[in-house]
Amino acid sequence: MLIKNGNVIIFEADDVKVKKVDIKIKDNIIEKIAEDIKPEENEEVIDATNKVVMPGLINTHAHIAMSIFRGTFEGCDLYTWLNQKIWPIEAKLTKEEVYNASRLSILEMISTGTTCVNDHYFFSEEIRKALTESKMRAVITRVLMDNDGKEASENRINEFINLYETRDKDNKLITYSVAPHGLYTCSGEVLAKARELAIKYNLPVHIHFLESINEVEDIKNLHGIRASEVLKKYFDGIHTILAHGVKLDDEDIEILKTMDCGISHNPLSNLRLGCKIADTTKYKQNGINVALGTDGQGSGNNLDMFEAMKMAALIQGGIHENEERLGSKDAIKMATINGAKLLGLEDKIGSIEEGKDADIIIVDIEPNLTNIKLIPNKDIISNLVYNTDGKNVETTIINGEVLMEKRKFKYLQPEKIIEKFIAF
Amino acid sequence: MLIKNGNVIIFEADDVKVKKVDIKIKDNIIEKIAEDIKPEENEEVIDATNKVVMPGLINTHAHIAMSIFRGTFEGCDLYTWLNQKIWPIEAKLTKEEVYNASRLSILEMISTGTTCVNDHYFFSEEIRKALTESKMRAVITRVLMDNDGKEASENRINEFINLYETRDKDNKLITYSVAPHGLYTCSGEVLAKARELAIKYNLPVHIHFLESINEVEDIKNLHGIRASEVLKKYFDGIHTILAHGVKLDDEDIEILKTMDCGISHNPLSNLRLGCKIADTTKYKQNGINVALGTDGQGSGNNLDMFEAMKMAALIQGGIHENEERLGSKDAIKMATINGAKLLGLEDKIGSIEEGKDADIIIVDIEPNLTNIKLIPNKDIISNLVYNTDGKNVETTIINGEVLMEKRKFKYLQPEKIIEKFIAF
Repeated sequence: MLIKNGNVIIFEADDVKVKKVDIKIKDNIIEKIAEDIKPEENEEVIDATNKVVMPGLINTHAHIAMSIFRGTFEGCDLYTWLNQKIWPIEAKLTKEEVYNASRLSILEMISTGTTCVNDHYFFSEEIRKALTESKMRAVITRVLMDNDGKEASENRINEFINLYETRDKDNKLITYSVAPHGLYTCSGEVLAKARELAIKYNLPVHIHFLESINEVEDIKNLHGIRASEVLKKYFDGIHTILAHGVKLDDEDIEILKTMDCGISHNPLSNLRLGCKIADTTKYKQNGINVALGTDGQGSGNNLDMFEAMKMAALIQGGIHENEERLGSKDAIKMATINGAKLLGLEDKIGSIEEGKDADIIIVDIEPNLTNIKLIPNKDIISNLVYNTDGKNVETTIINGEVLMEKRKFKYLQPEKIIEKFIAF
Repeated sequence: MLIKNGNVIIFEADDVKVKKVDIKIKDNIIEKIAEDIKPEENEEVIDATNKVVMPGLINTHAHIAMSIFRGTFEGCDLYTWLNQKIWPIEAKLTKEEVYNASRLSILEMISTGTTCVNDHYFFSEEIRKALTESKMRAVITRVLMDNDGKEASENRINEFINLYETRDKDNKLITYSVAPHGLYTCSGEVLAKARELAIKYNLPVHIHFLESINEVEDIKNLHGIRASEVLKKYFDGIHTILAHGVKLDDEDIEILKTMDCGISHNPLSNLRLGCKIADTTKYKQNGINVALGTDGQGSGNNLDMFEAMKMAALIQGGIHENEERLGSKDAIKMATINGAKLLGLEDKIGSIEEGKDADIIIVDIEPNLTNIKLIPNKDIISNLVYNTDGKNVETTIINGEVLMEKRKFKYLQPEKIIEKFIAF
């Protein structure tokens, strides 16, 4: 397969460039990137004239079954939202609801250019089934916690082990993490168990970390030491994905720098839950890898990584007055290569490079009425971040397979998925 | 004309409601709002099933000829942006460029649901011509300032007087403001002249006010008193539209409360220029009217008021931690009725009410793949603010005239307007 004549987003050294090159895909791999590649006989050619061709977007923190919570519970803080709104409903969710809700989110993700998601939920066999049927790339887990007692906690651990042990070893698209919910919902016992499992199975850890201000004291009360020290105590030497990381002070940053970890920044969710703004500019200046996530639709509104990119770039102007700060090029890297690094998948995905798996999206920037916000298009990268959204994505390729082409799906049937939620 | 079966946004007391009512428009006026209105013979009926019907959006601060600056100069502060980037280019702009650029912005506005814009620029006859041809509602001006000398300043004043004196008195869609650029670019002499003109012609004043932190000291140095005192000195008793108002302290708020003024909040522009976040929650709690604007595309990215609504609601979570703050219902009012009040046009526009001019937009929320971010749609208002954008607007009515219906234009020819900017 050949993608011709596109404006291709290429990472060179620390820069993000737009190059007019063609991309040849052989099986699932990006075989060649060069100017003016001639198609072989009978080779499929995708014309990307007036399109942007970029790495598929990597959502490093989501709860994909939470599509059913979209648009609910505005104006809550995190604890009220979890304790009074979300957890009581989640306790009654059925496997079928989780399956259907996951399919809805997968449709949302593929149609808005996300090619890999790092999920954090339960009934994870259902989520895996939905992802596998859709041929979507994902990191999945079964969340662990013990703030509701020992028996429930042990059930969760057994569910995680069962999920992992029943994996399809031939499916390279689905990988796994060990996911203690957070340091304020897990005792040392669960965290130690999570460490043990991460080492045993050689998996990364995925955990909520300092999302809201309340956690700072609560974690100290529960564990006797500051949050970043708890993290270091249990997960030193283990690759750890920290969701949120809004409330880091300089001491926390120094501790994190000694660890193998990075941050999944979820700006929309943080704003909607009144958690204020993570200083991702400072994290980057300190060499901490920052990637992007959407969180679930209940807090983050949607799974559109273009919205996350835009917000991640803009929001730094809310805390850095007349100062150097992250911008549109950083946002693109956060949503792609930084995400691949955070998930430990940078050898396979995150950039358009020869030898990597072909996770590629094609974004419509044709100068017409639909794209009026892109005209004039004097700076493609700036416009891509600030003036497009997931609706501009027209083609999504995962592992060399075209899952959506000009918004037509290969496997998913949008009407069938959507109809279950019309009178929801 | 009859708009049937829509989900109509109605303001009741302090609340924002969604009602299933029909709207009858006679000539340019909303004649009747009621359930199940029967069409008269030969009456045009617009079916709004699965649509939101809402007041046209009012952009209270823009520079519509600045479409040509879209996507440029990321990461500047306000002064660098103005002095080194924008003003040198503006000095060379031609009337034709301003006309074409205005037409591009008008296409952007009508297609994204803005029915009235409060502009702030020069070559204003060209802007007026573009607006008049498009049948768009607007408040226009010729900006005044004297930081480049007396002669240039006097030319500007004469151009403003000429603009106003040559107005078409039969055109009720175009009204005028007197617009000193800002308190840091205008001496007391120009401000006094602006006051005189505002009183003579009975016009509101439209001025940039405390957008960036640098202004606080600069205004004190130039005028000898704090910015809000300067404002009070020259514009007390005059209806005044304050663009931005980011840097207000409690003393400023107390002074503004004694005046006839309100704030045009431009969240995207403020973030992009590193001006931080206006505390609109506090302003509202103090009884100050807050409306919304986009600013020009050079700082604000685009003129899409849906993006401004979303950002205005979200951004308050960046400064109000676990506190009550503005939300989606406030954002809708800021973009409509509050805008009408700020422009002094609340008797005519800003809400769907019997007797008002019919400035109405119809927004597609059909549950399909394009609207995947709206599914499930359990809260129409929340979804409208957080999960739509201007591309969801399918019909725009200004003063009872359907200017765009299902994205087809009555007067404008999108291809003709766009083609001038393809190789721009």
